[in-house]
Amino acid sequence: MLTNKPKEISKDGSFKRQKNRFTTPFGNKQEELVVEPGKYRLLWSPACPWAHRAVIVRKLLGLDQVISLGTASPMRPNIGRVDWAFTLDENNQDPELSIEYVSEVYFNADSNYEGRPTVPVMVDLQTKQAVNNDYFNLTNYFETVWAPHHKENAPNLYPEHLQDKIDQMNESNFHTINNGVYKCGFAHSQEAYEEAFDQLFARLDELEAHLAENRFLMGDYITDADVRLYTTLARFDAAYYNGFNTNRNLIREYTNLWSYARDLYQTPGFGDTTDFESIKKHYHVSVTINPDKTATSILPKGPDLEVWDQPHGREKLSDQQDKFLR
Amino acid sequence: MLTNKPKEISKDGSFKRQKNRFTTPFGNKQEELVVEPGKYRLLWSPACPWAHRAVIVRKLLGLDQVISLGTASPMRPNIGRVDWAFTLDENNQDPELSIEYVSEVYFNADSNYEGRPTVPVMVDLQTKQAVNNDYFNLTNYFETVWAPHHKENAPNLYPEHLQDKIDQMNESNFHTINNGVYKCGFAHSQEAYEEAFDQLFARLDELEAHLAENRFLMGDYITDADVRLYTTLARFDAAYYNGFNTNRNLIREYTNLWSYARDLYQTPGFGDTTDFESIKKHYHVSVTINPDKTATSILPKGPDLEVWDQPHGREKLSDQQDKFLR
Repeated sequence: MLTNKPKEISKDGSFKRQKNRFTTPFGNKQEELVVEPGKYRLLWSPACPWAHRAVIVRKLLGLDQVISLGTASPMRPNIGRVDWAFTLDENNQDPELSIEYVSEVYFNADSNYEGRPTVPVMVDLQTKQAVNNDYFNLTNYFETVWAPHHKENAPNLYPEHLQDKIDQMNESNFHTINNGVYKCGFAHSQEAYEEAFDQLFARLDELEAHLAENRFLMGDYITDADVRLYTTLARFDAAYYNGFNTNRNLIREYTNLWSYARDLYQTPGFGDTTDFESIKKHYHVSVTINPDKTATSILPKGPDLEVWDQPHGREKLSDQQDKFLR
Repeated sequence: MLTNKPKEISKDGSFKRQKNRFTTPFGNKQEELVVEPGKYRLLWSPACPWAHRAVIVRKLLGLDQVISLGTASPMRPNIGRVDWAFTLDENNQDPELSIEYVSEVYFNADSNYEGRPTVPVMVDLQTKQAVNNDYFNLTNYFETVWAPHHKENAPNLYPEHLQDKIDQMNESNFHTINNGVYKCGFAHSQEAYEEAFDQLFARLDELEAHLAENRFLMGDYITDADVRLYTTLARFDAAYYNGFNTNRNLIREYTNLWSYARDLYQTPGFGDTTDFESIKKHYHVSVTINPDKTATSILPKGPDLEVWDQPHGREKLSDQQDKFLR
């Protein structure tokens, strides 16, 4: 029996993810966050799918030249609260911000902050304050108002004529898949778990059918929707299947979802930002926000990850040479 | 960190299964256990692969007419010690022995018994004492000295001319596979876990190749060796893959091991004694002898078990009509 019900578990045992605290958009209006090269640092951990989205888009668009990156360890620190720590850095400090924990930028911005400090978070390098942790919209800011700072010939991940469709796809995939795996893994009742499990696999089955005809979610080109789906698919077999009880099927047992995932993995910006070792460590060995999941000290040796490099054979689904609309 | 190192964990963190306490053979000599219909009750739990062996062989040979069966729950009782309980029976008592726990027949036989009470165990119905818990040899007794009580036209699961080969196969599979999955799941050090993991999958790969040419382990006919391998294969995807970190591959991802397992499952005596629900409950929800594995109260909904009924197509590997030598 559970003694301490975490804040994000509702009465019926289902997981309700906390709202983001810092949601001021980037833009050109007075009240918006100014878009300015060199002003911000993005904090992430390779374990986190929400942060991984932002890191992929940053790289695809060439924003790595104008927004710096701080990397927290996949291992939660053992300090009596949920946090992310810079134990991979010299002296256990982020070299630019001189902080040990991600929580510090949250407290710098709001000394009464009571939520979980999360990544991704954009930090103002001068004030060392968190200015935006709105993972749901952050990639869209990168894709739109940050466009003046994209690299030459950068892909268009969020074309205007597709934005409604992409938004709908993202919204649906968020509830069933991206956050769906967490609803499975963090459920505190069998009913809440099974409902999330059924919704997750129903949606994966739908996308499996969709991807039989479409090389990417929106057709011939990689868009923001693919980035978001990818970060969950990349963690599925290595972490969620056994760590979160999402064990109807492995992703590598699907024909189209699996070749689609490999197609993305083999695209620069995706595979080269995917750190399976960190992902496995975080979900299997590090303690999570679910108190049921205690550290076991054993890191599962599987699954075989070399299969990600197998040919995907999906070129035939598209008559475009380039995977990106530019 | 672990505070209470269980008795069966050695210094290097590896799992060393306890020796069986009651190993007097069945036979015709003065000092052996008398072979007599109606004299014994076999206690098992559908979760346990070692007990499942004995139940399959008992059924294949028709010994269900002469040895009765008591069934303990897959859920370990919460009584501060490791035990098996008859909570599936009326008044939580085995109807023949009037006991609540399997441990009682161990204490009846040895009031100083300090090991884990295990199934399978053969119990003398008159004295209510455990007389044999030697799972490694029990099926061989059923197959040989119990032959006068086999059903008509019973299969020969342990033919004399193959006994050495079967013994070698069983010995090898025991260390790497049957007990190998436990060595993975109960390891208390990363090194011990990885060594067991590598040995397990190396052996499965060997058998995968062997089964490309052979319908069963010894060729055309099902033998004792198949029964022993089957009970581990049947638990692999549903329990060990995620519960014991044996996650390089699922059995259903192998071509030959998977069709071989289905061939056996679809043979009377195998599938009809395989209780996946109990297996899942035991390994995922019930507490085990590994204190790291705490009850989480969530029973994984997967995997899809209907796949066990898919055609296996292995008839072509044998020119025999009957799967059994009789």
